[in-house]
Amino acid sequence: MPYIPSSITQPKTPLQAMPDYSQMQTPCYLYDLALLRETLDIASRSARQYNYQIHYALKANNNPALTTLISSYGMGADCVSGNEVAEALRIGFPAKEVVFAGVGKSDSEIQLALKEDILCINCESLEELIVTEEIARNMQKAAPVAIRINPGVEAKTHKYITTGLDENKFGVHLSQIQEVLDFASQSPWLKLMGLHFHIGSQITSMEPFEKLAHRVNELWTTLEMDKRGGILLNLGGGLGVNYQDPTGDPIAPFDEYFGVFAKNLKVPSHVKVRFELGRSLVAQCGKIITRVLYTKKGINRDFVITDAGMTELMRPALYQSKHHITNLTSELPEQIYDVVGPICESSDVFAKDISLPSTSRGHILAIHTCGAYSESMMLHYNMRDKAGFVLV
Amino acid sequence: MPYIPSSITQPKTPLQAMPDYSQMQTPCYLYDLALLRETLDIASRSARQYNYQIHYALKANNNPALTTLISSYGMGADCVSGNEVAEALRIGFPAKEVVFAGVGKSDSEIQLALKEDILCINCESLEELIVTEEIARNMQKAAPVAIRINPGVEAKTHKYITTGLDENKFGVHLSQIQEVLDFASQSPWLKLMGLHFHIGSQITSMEPFEKLAHRVNELWTTLEMDKRGGILLNLGGGLGVNYQDPTGDPIAPFDEYFGVFAKNLKVPSHVKVRFELGRSLVAQCGKIITRVLYTKKGINRDFVITDAGMTELMRPALYQSKHHITNLTSELPEQIYDVVGPICESSDVFAKDISLPSTSRGHILAIHTCGAYSESMMLHYNMRDKAGFVLV
Repeated sequence: MPYIPSSITQPKTPLQAMPDYSQMQTPCYLYDLALLRETLDIASRSARQYNYQIHYALKANNNPALTTLISSYGMGADCVSGNEVAEALRIGFPAKEVVFAGVGKSDSEIQLALKEDILCINCESLEELIVTEEIARNMQKAAPVAIRINPGVEAKTHKYITTGLDENKFGVHLSQIQEVLDFASQSPWLKLMGLHFHIGSQITSMEPFEKLAHRVNELWTTLEMDKRGGILLNLGGGLGVNYQDPTGDPIAPFDEYFGVFAKNLKVPSHVKVRFELGRSLVAQCGKIITRVLYTKKGINRDFVITDAGMTELMRPALYQSKHHITNLTSELPEQIYDVVGPICESSDVFAKDISLPSTSRGHILAIHTCGAYSESMMLHYNMRDKAGFVLV
Repeated sequence: MPYIPSSITQPKTPLQAMPDYSQMQTPCYLYDLALLRETLDIASRSARQYNYQIHYALKANNNPALTTLISSYGMGADCVSGNEVAEALRIGFPAKEVVFAGVGKSDSEIQLALKEDILCINCESLEELIVTEEIARNMQKAAPVAIRINPGVEAKTHKYITTGLDENKFGVHLSQIQEVLDFASQSPWLKLMGLHFHIGSQITSMEPFEKLAHRVNELWTTLEMDKRGGILLNLGGGLGVNYQDPTGDPIAPFDEYFGVFAKNLKVPSHVKVRFELGRSLVAQCGKIITRVLYTKKGINRDFVITDAGMTELMRPALYQSKHHITNLTSELPEQIYDVVGPICESSDVFAKDISLPSTSRGHILAIHTCGAYSESMMLHYNMRDKAGFVLV
């Protein structure tokens, strides 16, 4: 079984192979490149209708097997650290399609972004803008910036992944935006490109996006973005995927998503509209493949103990998120189980009271929808070996 | 400033130096070895009074600068993975003072433990015992085992770090313990050493420990552990530290802790009583040193944005835990701030509404009580560089 040990520093080479689960080294990430291609096809086609550009959010998964394929679709990159900017360029994303976001950019990261002539830095505060200006002046090179606005649109998602409401660390508050834009417009060392928004993640209703579009329309006018020379509107990401039914609903509703903006957004046609998608592009193409170490009889419940743990998938412990789980090697009648990992933490639980075919030691389970925020959040806790990955 | 880049695979060499915060590469872990020595002195002396043995829980922090010092105190090691067993032996913990715990031991990890002749494997279920027996038979080498009992004692701590209550993945339920002990007693390939308990972490009241002692007394008798040849009683860990006032109360109450057991525990004198301490030994000797990237003016609050994030300290995001924070470089009048990290996650918040001396870009903050479950839970998310460490 072609199993590629994971490595943070080494590039990873794609491999084609059919999965033979019984021989598979577990736990591992399994990526379905055919599904990823299909997803990218649909997303690209949807966006192209409206001349929208998609930036792939590397933080979702920076496995080069995936990012190389994604970059081949002509997408841009959305980076949140200097290392991600460097990695995006290494993979082949064109510098002029790379954006750099984040509330805590260090000086050296800003310098890197300027040196590499990326499309733009999404600035999150006046304070950051002042530092960016100073760095740009020292480098004698104007910094292209978009201002991230905290638009006060409720994302209706987990509190940990909502970002657009009042008074969190992200973005510029509406009451401060004039001052920030004036600073950016007036500085010779800042080139104001436009506005940036991101209201949250894993949003499964179109309503918040519709609200965002309307809010953006108002703001573009009120803030006189045309007069300020705005040519870029970055609407962030947030499109959710179906964690409950990944097999029945493997591709996010890109047509509906972009359609909501196409219908509701009213900005001049020369303004390039950009989106930052991560999860919706890669989540469903990935699974964690894990071997059952023990099934443990309890009193009110039986436990399936897997060789994957929170070290390979932090989301349930961090966000109480639920991933669909299937047994790939049993078709026996179903039973109720708690599925738990081997880590010495009570939070290392993948699912409670779920129904699985009767499960025994040695069976292979798939934890679905692990293409995003799984491998990129891998932990070395308990000195665990890093899980590798398999491509199919 | 002697800064040692962190590396998972390379051994780390201790260095002596006084901190010059202004020159320090941040974020980094700063370990105070003098405080660690003082803590180890007190803990060892307390335990020695009663002939108790302390095992250090490597999962709390496996930085070799710390573990090497700890092993020099004659302590044993508490390991939760094969890699931790191998690391404990590499550091110099004697095999006969190494225990191996965890609900999901793989076959190869059990083989390693047997090959290395460690003191004992803490078995968590009948199913694991059956697998261990089979491996031992194949290796023609009896496996020393202690049975972990889920004693039903409430630890009164965060739900994620309570482990002793009914029906979680840890340990053998009381109703099943006879069957498990009979299996262990009767197998020629298992050597029943005794019992293992662990009721949770960060327990700051002595009441749960007193209850545990009484429960253990009952169980040792009811389960006829003397007749079964029990010679080991492992009471786990759980002793909490003072996260609110780390400077005023830097050393956990070891005398009180061991005293509760000495007063209440009634097991024969030939039974060796062992404890697994992690946090209480190392938490207070570690701080995260972080530089302020920006102070961002908000509407109802101001934000201090640090160059450390949840990647260096997961506990606030994972457990909503609060670490004391001080500004090492300002003595200005105090203000109220939210202290947040640079990671693109709303959960990347260290503290809300705390009072700090007026804080500006470039100031150095200390996040206290980061010797445990900080470096060992480091994340590479957002492709962040791994933080190094400094020893003082």
